[in-house]
Amino acid sequence: MHRILVVNPNSSGRATDRILKSLAPLQNERLDLELKHSMRGPEGVDTILDISIAGIETVRLIAENRKKYDAFIIACGADPGLDAARQITDKPVVGIAEAGILIGWPLGRTFAMLTGMKQEIPQMQALVRCYGLEERLACVLAVDMATAELTKGGDHLMDHNIIIAQKAVDEHLAEVIVLSGAVVSDLAQPLQDKIGVPVVAGLTAAVKMAESLLDLGLQTSHVYSYWTPKKDDRLIGYEDLQDVYST
Amino acid sequence: MHRILVVNPNSSGRATDRILKSLAPLQNERLDLELKHSMRGPEGVDTILDISIAGIETVRLIAENRKKYDAFIIACGADPGLDAARQITDKPVVGIAEAGILIGWPLGRTFAMLTGMKQEIPQMQALVRCYGLEERLACVLAVDMATAELTKGGDHLMDHNIIIAQKAVDEHLAEVIVLSGAVVSDLAQPLQDKIGVPVVAGLTAAVKMAESLLDLGLQTSHVYSYWTPKKDDRLIGYEDLQDVYST
Amino acid sequence: MHRILVVNPNSSGRATDRILKSLAPLQNERLDLELKHSMRGPEGVDTILDISIAGIETVRLIAENRKKYDAFIIACGADPGLDAARQITDKPVVGIAEAGILIGWPLGRTFAMLTGMKQEIPQMQALVRCYGLEERLACVLAVDMATAELTKGGDHLMDHNIIIAQKAVDEHLAEVIVLSGAVVSDLAQPLQDKIGVPVVAGLTAAVKMAESLLDLGLQTSHVYSYWTPKKDDRLIGYEDLQDVYST
Amino acid sequence: MHRILVVNPNSSGRATDRILKSLAPLQNERLDLELKHSMRGPEGVDTILDISIAGIETVRLIAENRKKYDAFIIACGADPGLDAARQITDKPVVGIAEAGILIGWPLGRTFAMLTGMKQEIPQMQALVRCYGLEERLACVLAVDMATAELTKGGDHLMDHNIIIAQKAVDEHLAEVIVLSGAVVSDLAQPLQDKIGVPVVAGLTAAVKMAESLLDLGLQTSHVYSYWTPKKDDRLIGYEDLQDVYST
Amino acid sequence: MHRILVVNPNSSGRATDRILKSLAPLQNERLDLELKHSMRGPEGVDTILDISIAGIETVRLIAENRKKYDAFIIACGADPGLDAARQITDKPVVGIAEAGILIGWPLGRTFAMLTGMKQEIPQMQALVRCYGLEERLACVLAVDMATAELTKGGDHLMDHNIIIAQKAVDEHLAEVIVLSGAVVSDLAQPLQDKIGVPVVAGLTAAVKMAESLLDLGLQTSHVYSYWTPKKDDRLIGYEDLQDVYST
Amino acid sequence: MHRILVVNPNSSGRATDRILKSLAPLQNERLDLELKHSMRGPEGVDTILDISIAGIETVRLIAENRKKYDAFIIACGADPGLDAARQITDKPVVGIAEAGILIGWPLGRTFAMLTGMKQEIPQMQALVRCYGLEERLACVLAVDMATAELTKGGDHLMDHNIIIAQKAVDEHLAEVIVLSGAVVSDLAQPLQDKIGVPVVAGLTAAVKMAESLLDLGLQTSHVYSYWTPKKDDRLIGYEDLQDVYST
Repeated sequence: MHRILVVNPNSSGRATDRILKSLAPLQNERLDLELKHSMRGPEGVDTILDISIAGIETVRLIAENRKKYDAFIIACGADPGLDAARQITDKPVVGIAEAGILIGWPLGRTFAMLTGMKQEIPQMQALVRCYGLEERLACVLAVDMATAELTKGGDHLMDHNIIIAQKAVDEHLAEVIVLSGAVVSDLAQPLQDKIGVPVVAGLTAAVKMAESLLDLGLQTSHVYSYWTPKKDDRLIGYEDLQDVYST
Repeated sequence: MHRILVVNPNSSGRATDRILKSLAPLQNERLDLELKHSMRGPEGVDTILDISIAGIETVRLIAENRKKYDAFIIACGADPGLDAARQITDKPVVGIAEAGILIGWPLGRTFAMLTGMKQEIPQMQALVRCYGLEERLACVLAVDMATAELTKGGDHLMDHNIIIAQKAVDEHLAEVIVLSGAVVSDLAQPLQDKIGVPVVAGLTAAVKMAESLLDLGLQTSHVYSYWTPKKDDRLIGYEDLQDVYST
Repeated sequence: MHRILVVNPNSSGRATDRILKSLAPLQNERLDLELKHSMRGPEGVDTILDISIAGIETVRLIAENRKKYDAFIIACGADPGLDAARQITDKPVVGIAEAGILIGWPLGRTFAMLTGMKQEIPQMQALVRCYGLEERLACVLAVDMATAELTKGGDHLMDHNIIIAQKAVDEHLAEVIVLSGAVVSDLAQPLQDKIGVPVVAGLTAAVKMAESLLDLGLQTSHVYSYWTPKKDDRLIGYEDLQDVYST
Repeated sequence: MHRILVVNPNSSGRATDRILKSLAPLQNERLDLELKHSMRGPEGVDTILDISIAGIETVRLIAENRKKYDAFIIACGADPGLDAARQITDKPVVGIAEAGILIGWPLGRTFAMLTGMKQEIPQMQALVRCYGLEERLACVLAVDMATAELTKGGDHLMDHNIIIAQKAVDEHLAEVIVLSGAVVSDLAQPLQDKIGVPVVAGLTAAVKMAESLLDLGLQTSHVYSYWTPKKDDRLIGYEDLQDVYST
Repeated sequence: MHRILVVNPNSSGRATDRILKSLAPLQNERLDLELKHSMRGPEGVDTILDISIAGIETVRLIAENRKKYDAFIIACGADPGLDAARQITDKPVVGIAEAGILIGWPLGRTFAMLTGMKQEIPQMQALVRCYGLEERLACVLAVDMATAELTKGGDHLMDHNIIIAQKAVDEHLAEVIVLSGAVVSDLAQPLQDKIGVPVVAGLTAAVKMAESLLDLGLQTSHVYSYWTPKKDDRLIGYEDLQDVYST
Repeated sequence: MHRILVVNPNSSGRATDRILKSLAPLQNERLDLELKHSMRGPEGVDTILDISIAGIETVRLIAENRKKYDAFIIACGADPGLDAARQITDKPVVGIAEAGILIGWPLGRTFAMLTGMKQEIPQMQALVRCYGLEERLACVLAVDMATAELTKGGDHLMDHNIIIAQKAVDEHLAEVIVLSGAVVSDLAQPLQDKIGVPVVAGLTAAVKMAESLLDLGLQTSHVYSYWTPKKDDRLIGYEDLQDVYST
């Protein structure tokens, strides 16, 4: 049985509840999914500073729990802390934006990312490019709602998503839609039914990616990017993270 | 329960046996994996013409079986027929080269593909580029053995793989190794143990990718690249494929 | 005198007639152009499966005739079978999409490809990218007509082409137009007169490219991508292609 | 007069001293350069986790001092916290890796980055790519010394740098060398004298870039990537950063 | 004190006056900026031939003055003669298009270039690409006025710039605006005030870049691209340039 | 009958003789090839300044002869003046570096450029990139001889070319060799015989490209990059070029 910790990098209880609801159908006898959210950091992850702070808090939560779980999912569309978290454990760490794109890759030649606010578009484009996955990116489009609004859900949110998903397909020739946000996962199925192209929710894609890596016995490479020096009490003020350097 | 058909695009019984052996550990009560190989086409898939012929035969086998299975895996490192097979069914079709790369993506920032013969290197580089996944490709290296030789396995094969995998890591800074061939899957674990970086076998990665897509209810997009016109008796001499145009 | 075989990869007599008409002005005492079409395969090449099947049939036709001609042209905008055909002979094999782009390159810094149906746009973009020629691609635009309709020709077709060619120039800053389809070659001149930018017909460009290669004594490289193993009765069910492996 | 704060993102006093020494020659009556180092975080910034933690501490130091200075320099070759720091102030924030590359751009068509440890090479390549500046990157080469060693300086360090700089020029055709590390700035001049190609020290380049932006009255764009929402007590546990959201 | 020669590559007195006016605020006791314009060549630099001729005349002017100044600025948005001028002197030579982009880089993740005429857009896109700086180019937009008109200035020019700058920000998600033309430098500040994103004038950016290179003691690399053979009376009809080959 | 002017952009009589010799076999009753060389400019085109000067002189020669010929070939591996020459006439202008690459494209998936001196390598790489043709560039390798030496020809030159061509094939996986220089055209055939991969001489490729464009009635696009304003006595000191602005 795989024990996977899903970290909600923002400190919002309401978001955590929505994420839990989306994950429920994936639970089964071979999989134990647990969800924790940061006690610190931003309530919603909208800006680059939010991402940085949420990143550190995500790493802290993973570090604290790294012996208790088999894999970790970072449940936020900006994948905060993904690279740093990969350094501190051999166990798979999966980000939902990255996983959503990867799982959607075999379904069509181009994909669109839907995100929250227009301001975040260049940041999301940069993220996809930093992942080396921009070649098939048809467009990043925004529903123009902040995380706090998105969390509320409702018909309004669904309507907005239908309009921009259709625009992605018709004008930008997207063949697959990726929903990067964690709180909009339950829109995937109705949106797919409405638009008629596959809609991948990053959150559930991440669970499947984590399970796949676990089933295949694959671990993070520490030979270059995610290497770690010997432990030497080098971290002042972050003593809780100090002992990750001992691996 | 998911029923997945694994197609061996070459017509070699020996290769089919090796593939079967590699897949055995992945079988479980939720998964029924069946393996078929083409009765026609090349015995080993080495050249571009081999790929084209094996591609059509793969599509034929999938077309013939497309109502009996939930997903299809093309078990050859050149992914013959992958795009065409996606056109003829809504069900997921997964290629082992593509899946190996995608499943390896979260494990490190760069990857190396190991292939059979030096002559095939530019063809494999072109394949990775056509998939839009070349950004993190550290190198394609060859063990310099034809498919027929690879199929025999043995210590010699393992030794060759160790040498070039180590070269990929040391000289080309690869953080992850992807074994694209179907018949070398069982080398993944010992090679990983030896080299100390994650080694992804495309074949087993493809099984996990197919399961993931099935679990998430995702199907191939037919809106652009994989669209199909109405049935109209248009295929002379390929009548067995004619009725795929009725979907 | 150069003997060039032009292969129409689809099995339509009407298309073959239109192609013949377009080629007539290029005939001269130094050039013998002959046209053959497949007896098998799709009537029109619209989808990815069409391309795969037409590809094999094209290779068959070239294999069968490879001693009688000096060069081969694949007269279909998707260049079906181009790579595989290059493997089976030292003689030049030219695709009309590729040749159209190459011949248009010296005429302006950006080019537009005009194609038939909107669904085919991502597939054509992927083709240009697989050729490594996407850097100057301003856009792929579609007249939104299937091959069968295109074959009929007429004012309607011309009007559609004028509208999208003008759009390519005005909105996408295309400096050169490339007509990828074989049956629309005779539109090149009137379209050029109307729009005022050079319009390259892939079909006639391919004839000039083939002549150029012949005049220069250049042959396909078989050192890597187009290599061929020794003959060994390896092709079951494709015995007609077997002896190409003897080279 | 411009007041510029140079932040040493690591918590090492020895490194701070070396940086100070390198900056001394740039001081003049029009420029007030002050140097502060984090009281928290890693002693040397070597790994991705080090970069994340040092990033937050850098942002903290800049936030705390953002009214007292006219511009900010992040004096570490991995530019920790650069993007997040840009969000919290209109005043220019300059990273030494980025500035080193930009200032070196007009001096030659290709550049090499020299870095500390071999493990860091893919991370530095990824950084240059994330900056969109990879097109002219000839290579990233490492002297194979950790930050702590680099800080000691000495002949050994110089010898290593000469060898790899020469290799960058001779084998990778680099026309310009960029020293990304903050503590190796004083090697630039002797290395340049020895190798005969321009050697840019990121640290001093960053001072000139900051002055240039100040002289030209240019400020960070907050319209997309570096936008900030209204203040709303959203940051739990990072109250010191809370009021940056009020701008 | 730095002596910098600003070369106006066109032969227009009116343009020279406008450039002088823009440079006045940058003069100080540490900087001596002098302006010269070609006595030969085109009155305005609009076409590719204009650029070539202006390039040679720019090189001539720089060659003639290369002992009297410390650095050279080419004050035309197409950077005519930039590469060739770098060959003939060790002293920094800065182009205003290149410098405008480089100085704007730290201010936002994407930039727009504003240029004169629509016809010039592909040429400016090609220039940015040849510089290897296209990764963050959001768009090139034109005010649709020839250099002669631009030189007149006035409200009309400002209005046009406001409209296209706003379009660049709103529709193309540009975070920074770069004014490539030399005669529009004084629009930067009012445009920035109006649009609310940083507007970089290439001309003033070039002055700061030149000063930075001088302050840092950096010179052009002559190891590859800008190398020069021994003097050998090889230049017939360009004897004034002959002796640059002696360095 | 097509009348084509081949311009030798350098002022060397010996080079002109070698070029003539290479072109002789291409002469026939349908083609009149004439060769002229500049009376001014560098004796050999090695550096960037050489290219600029030779470019203007090439444009002058073409301008002077533009009514007498049907097409123009610039017979120098750096294609000096190519873009500017395209502006001044509707008739095809072909560069030998560009034509060599384009004609070689259908022969293999990767190509190598052989050039004269090691110092020129980055400049040639930049040229290929500016043409948008870098995707299939395996490498640029140099025989390490200046143009003057190359012009002498001889066994030594052939030996050098064999060594680096073999290196391009074996180590860089080049499938096609392109000889960019005009004076080394007659090496193509013996080099091809020796190495066993196709060797394209840019010079003869350019003749075929020019003939192809003429046969197809294709002219340079003047809609964007190669546009020309109305004649207005704007060119001081280049009055011989003035009237090209009247078209």
